[in-house]
Amino acid sequence: MGLFTKDIATLDDLYVHQLQDVYYAENQITKALPKMIDKATSPQLKANFQTHLMETEGQIERLKRVFEMHGLAPKAVTCAAMDGIVKEANEISGEVSDKQVLDAALIAAAQAVEHYEIARYGTLVAWANQLGHENEAELLQQTLDEEHATDKKLTALAEGKINANAEMA
Amino acid sequence: MGLFTKDIATLDDLYVHQLQDVYYAENQITKALPKMIDKATSPQLKANFQTHLMETEGQIERLKRVFEMHGLAPKAVTCAAMDGIVKEANEISGEVSDKQVLDAALIAAAQAVEHYEIARYGTLVAWANQLGHENEAELLQQTLDEEHATDKKLTALAEGKINANAEMA
Repeated sequence: MGLFTKDIATLDDLYVHQLQDVYYAENQITKALPKMIDKATSPQLKANFQTHLMETEGQIERLKRVFEMHGLAPKAVTCAAMDGIVKEANEISGEVSDKQVLDAALIAAAQAVEHYEIARYGTLVAWANQLGHENEAELLQQTLDEEHATDKKLTALAEGKINANAEMA
Repeated sequence: MGLFTKDIATLDDLYVHQLQDVYYAENQITKALPKMIDKATSPQLKANFQTHLMETEGQIERLKRVFEMHGLAPKAVTCAAMDGIVKEANEISGEVSDKQVLDAALIAAAQAVEHYEIARYGTLVAWANQLGHENEAELLQQTLDEEHATDKKLTALAEGKINANAEMA
């Protein structure tokens, strides 16, 4: 989340602020993923990142619908946490020498992104339900389910062939 | 993770770098939690943060043992992601006006911290096993289990009384 102000007085204010936070985060991810796709050497990892990019674009559209259902225009607030995670991912992309070790590092970076999103969407679903916005909660839950699925696929990649190769490098 | 250099050539280099990253992150958390304990209004949330602070201190001792088993002195590298997450938590602590909404925001911040750690320790356990350091993997798994348990407790708090009160504020 970005800078808080005393304007955040109710749970609804906090909910809207967190929607704006993840809207910013998702947009940053769509900028980071193409670089990660370029850098990844394993075809499976490239394919995973491609799928995740398409999913992220769908998640942004879903967020726009949630804003609309809430009677608001989509808006982003700077999220220092996602900026930090993306900064680290970019550093990895540029600085690890061995290709297979780079793949292992890219998976780790992507899992940090996924878990940030899992935390944020989990909170948003809980708050949407508590505020009585079940339709919004349902859309947010769809994204949460996708993030969990992506994280599981990344774990399978991390535990499988890619890192086994890196180990021998 | 902090700045990568071309020194990261093997999975072992990457593993050590990530150990240094979480060592930094855990130390930042021990600085952030006392402020969050002060700010929390719900006695249950205060107690949860107190427990988490003690656990974090134990996790730092465990990391020191992992460094030692790996033949290295404990060392921290700056982690932009955790800096961002902690920055957001501090902003929340200072800027939300309503006490119960503040509790909801503090839980959300703590869950972002937990999920960052879950991602990083998950990766560390996988890499430790792949590198044949089963004893290190076992210690790291203990911390990973604690992080999952803490996250579940925070979810219970978020879905229970605290946010229900905030909703009515």
